[in-house]
Amino acid sequence: MGILETIKRPEDLRRLSKPTLHDVALELREELIRVGSAIGGHFAGSLGTVELSVALHYVFETPEDRIIWDVGHQAYGHKVLTGRREGLWRIKRADGPSGFLRRSESPYDVFGAGHAGTSISAALGIAEAARRKGEDRKAVAVIGDGASTAGMSFEALNHAGHIGAPVRVIYNENGMSIAPNVGGLSRTGDVEAYVRSLGVEYRGVVDAHDLDALIVALEGLRDDVSGPVVLHVRTRKGCGYEPAEADPFKWHATTPFEIESGQRQKTAGGPPSWTASFADALSRLADRDPRLVAITAAMPDGTGLDKFGERHPDRVYDVGIAEQHAVTFAAGLATEGFRPVCAIYSTFLQRAFDQIMHDVALQNLPVVFAMDRAGLVGADGPTHHGLLDIAYLRSIPNLVIASPRDENELQHLLATGLEADAPFAIRFPRGAALGVALDPEAKPLPIGRGEILREGNDVALVGLGKSVPVAEAAAERLAARGISAMVIDARFVKPLDRELLRSAAEQCGHVVTIEDHFVAGGFGSAVRETLGREVPEARVLTLGIQDRFVEHGEAADQWRAEGLDSGSVAEETARWIAPDLSPRWDATPSWVGRSEN
Amino acid sequence: MGILETIKRPEDLRRLSKPTLHDVALELREELIRVGSAIGGHFAGSLGTVELSVALHYVFETPEDRIIWDVGHQAYGHKVLTGRREGLWRIKRADGPSGFLRRSESPYDVFGAGHAGTSISAALGIAEAARRKGEDRKAVAVIGDGASTAGMSFEALNHAGHIGAPVRVIYNENGMSIAPNVGGLSRTGDVEAYVRSLGVEYRGVVDAHDLDALIVALEGLRDDVSGPVVLHVRTRKGCGYEPAEADPFKWHATTPFEIESGQRQKTAGGPPSWTASFADALSRLADRDPRLVAITAAMPDGTGLDKFGERHPDRVYDVGIAEQHAVTFAAGLATEGFRPVCAIYSTFLQRAFDQIMHDVALQNLPVVFAMDRAGLVGADGPTHHGLLDIAYLRSIPNLVIASPRDENELQHLLATGLEADAPFAIRFPRGAALGVALDPEAKPLPIGRGEILREGNDVALVGLGKSVPVAEAAAERLAARGISAMVIDARFVKPLDRELLRSAAEQCGHVVTIEDHFVAGGFGSAVRETLGREVPEARVLTLGIQDRFVEHGEAADQWRAEGLDSGSVAEETARWIAPDLSPRWDATPSWVGRSEN
Repeated sequence: MGILETIKRPEDLRRLSKPTLHDVALELREELIRVGSAIGGHFAGSLGTVELSVALHYVFETPEDRIIWDVGHQAYGHKVLTGRREGLWRIKRADGPSGFLRRSESPYDVFGAGHAGTSISAALGIAEAARRKGEDRKAVAVIGDGASTAGMSFEALNHAGHIGAPVRVIYNENGMSIAPNVGGLSRTGDVEAYVRSLGVEYRGVVDAHDLDALIVALEGLRDDVSGPVVLHVRTRKGCGYEPAEADPFKWHATTPFEIESGQRQKTAGGPPSWTASFADALSRLADRDPRLVAITAAMPDGTGLDKFGERHPDRVYDVGIAEQHAVTFAAGLATEGFRPVCAIYSTFLQRAFDQIMHDVALQNLPVVFAMDRAGLVGADGPTHHGLLDIAYLRSIPNLVIASPRDENELQHLLATGLEADAPFAIRFPRGAALGVALDPEAKPLPIGRGEILREGNDVALVGLGKSVPVAEAAAERLAARGISAMVIDARFVKPLDRELLRSAAEQCGHVVTIEDHFVAGGFGSAVRETLGREVPEARVLTLGIQDRFVEHGEAADQWRAEGLDSGSVAEETARWIAPDLSPRWDATPSWVGRSEN
Repeated sequence: MGILETIKRPEDLRRLSKPTLHDVALELREELIRVGSAIGGHFAGSLGTVELSVALHYVFETPEDRIIWDVGHQAYGHKVLTGRREGLWRIKRADGPSGFLRRSESPYDVFGAGHAGTSISAALGIAEAARRKGEDRKAVAVIGDGASTAGMSFEALNHAGHIGAPVRVIYNENGMSIAPNVGGLSRTGDVEAYVRSLGVEYRGVVDAHDLDALIVALEGLRDDVSGPVVLHVRTRKGCGYEPAEADPFKWHATTPFEIESGQRQKTAGGPPSWTASFADALSRLADRDPRLVAITAAMPDGTGLDKFGERHPDRVYDVGIAEQHAVTFAAGLATEGFRPVCAIYSTFLQRAFDQIMHDVALQNLPVVFAMDRAGLVGADGPTHHGLLDIAYLRSIPNLVIASPRDENELQHLLATGLEADAPFAIRFPRGAALGVALDPEAKPLPIGRGEILREGNDVALVGLGKSVPVAEAAAERLAARGISAMVIDARFVKPLDRELLRSAAEQCGHVVTIEDHFVAGGFGSAVRETLGREVPEARVLTLGIQDRFVEHGEAADQWRAEGLDSGSVAEETARWIAPDLSPRWDATPSWVGRSEN
């Protein structure tokens, strides 16, 4: 029996002798490699923080002292040491722990995470709370150099330097975000000058794989602090697993692999991902449009801009985890005639809401927003779902908002956006696209025009993006029950195709909208506004995500649980338009709280 | 005739000899003081940048070279030198220029402004565009030390240090935001270390009231630059007008004044402002609730937290222009049992949308958001209206959203928010409150409950916040026409009072919502969603702001132009429910594009 098994909580760790901690670190690293090889996931970050996780829980009295991890990709060791060792084998599954930090999951997760750059702000609030209450509680933020490129990290350090609360910040330099880190600070490496200029004490650099030295430094950070302090440590992402150390970018997240050889499981074949389809379409559009440049906020791989950059190396900008700057930088380029494409996940674009309104839409500048990971994202859970973008964008004047039903429509919508003299947002989901054939050339579509995909008379099913095929399949099911359903690909949320919606509503009397977005304020809500004016006698049923956060799990399960699979849509539609004729088709309990009109 | 009159555009300035520029600066300053004394407004900032404005347009070939002013409060001199001297006397009026920068207003306003911290991002985009096109065009951002506390300024400098595009940044240190500047950088004053740590060249410090020295420095900035450069200059806000120099905080914005004595026109009597009512209520609540702390993002005066701070000096935090950090700092405090109140204008809270969702609502932390300046704000125009907050907040689970109809309801809603175990947003407008009597004690109201203020049978007018008195007055007008209107104070946008709305819709059949917010996705849209489910046969008419940006002007005029005054509401309601019975009451053209169901 290894020593790791005896550690059920950090108190167990703190009872050990310092030399024994080396064994704990060794076993912890082996455990992380074993889990990673078996189930894949985000492990390179956590391999880099093995000693840091052990030392932090050894030196500080957690959970009374507060450790605030930024993002959470590097906190798997923390999970193991705080009673979630078994759970780690099910991480990100519906029956396992979150891939990030969750207050609801453990008293040791004192502040939730998922988006980067929040930890210093939260820790400063916690440190200031302790100061106000006269408590000796310590607050320690652990933030990487990647997350430190987020503006709010600067805002927090600058505020810390002003109020002087004893917040402890561990600045973990590993040279990486997910991709290699960017930014002038990363180039100069002069973290000391940066930190001191903000009025914050600087200590370091400490090699955070040297456990003894690290413990000494942390004991100093615990006992010998009178104001805000940054302790600068260095780690190697993937440390202790050679293939990951050699290529930490590739190993940031992994499929299951063979430990000995580093051989990674091939992902299954099948259609290309939406991301790959986007990157491919964008690359081809850039061939013919010299105005096109692409911008990512530290996600060249996730957004596909790494592939775009292989073909157009001088036309892609990685600005760091800096969505606010990304958008206004794009606006600046647009004023000079360029057509910037901001490729930012739906959930991360939330950071730039003000800039979209103030710098892009108000000036009606032609910036394209490619919002990958819109809708339910599955394993990454509530911090990463893109369930708000329609609501936060559709009230902004001038913006066009569209969503493609397949990768062929995606290339055409990109072409449309690049020709539009207006800001243009395109949302598309995570995962595999449909594998449809691509037209040889991407061509602009008429803005604000949807398409009837199937004629019908009893009810109109209106899909958007990923829900269009759901509507088609639901119509098939309804046909088998003798219900004639029209199917519409709305394609545009803004402007909506009023004519098309009106004629469909007049013809069918009943309209069902289907979306992978919160119902409140979403696509269906926009349809309701329009039909309320155009065809007030029509009835509208809006299917989508109800008013609560959706936990992590398998994306397909989430779709079913939210009633967005074609079976659920067909059943709900049938019960709505013909409640007496349509007995329940199966015995599983239906979902609740549908919004219907 | 002075020399200033001969300058119609910067070319005229560039024809002058250098010594003559001193006269231009002298006359420009006198002109600004004359205008300020006559009409009031934001003048202290621009008095500090008189020489800088003259020198920039003298040295750089504007508009071919691009000057990007941050915020715009300091750009009045720029307006005078670029053909808007006459207009300045009507600044911020509907028939005059904007108080900020607008691309639509002048080719010399190359990038719009209003919110702080955007200029470096925009200028970097413009500089990079010139580099890509091989043009020698210069891009110069002018940003104050206040605006530099915004995280996106850091993001932009850090990116500049990475890509090396020759963006020119003039860092104008005057020690002020609107209030005295905050932040560790402001304390250390070590701008040089900060800038260099980000890989950006640093020059300075130059006294920007020494015109000759400034011109030399700017010529160097024009000609001798190979990468990103920050030129550090110092100015005195209010420079050249002694009372303003002595108290630049007080003189950031002013009423008309007598130049000789510095005597400022008293503002008219009347009810206290919403801001003052908020500050007073909050101060009294803090007397009895030790958990209450208040947070402002560099707006202690605008939010009333300066008054709060007089009574509770150790319970107010000014975090700088750092809304993102403000919200997550509040979340940190809330995890430790405090009840933070973030007092941030509706429009500026847009910056923290992601933090509200990710750090507050997802963790269901009890943070109160006091959103002043919600709705139409009048003279500050489209960058400052608060027309999006309901749309961007109401899709977020867990949040409560409320709005008081008068200052008495405001104090009760604050008490409600402080007792709620959930994030709680309160929106209230700019300007004078109603002058109603205050109950001696603020008491929690039931969450999600509205109130019937007047019984009626033909139509239900549903107001929210500022539109409740409008609904009441409209009901009076309708009564005079024989139409019986129920009046409801919805009070809560989320959760809506479904029972009350249902019974009103069942009783009246017709429901009119009135809001100072975009119709798309707003309060009326939420009512439509609820009634669509609860009383599908009811008809809904949603009055509010249509889908376009609203320019600057007098707030009362804007209300009328948007059809939100009681006369317009009554007329529109009458024509909607009884089109045959209700001839137009006046001959003015009605507004267009109403959304009705």
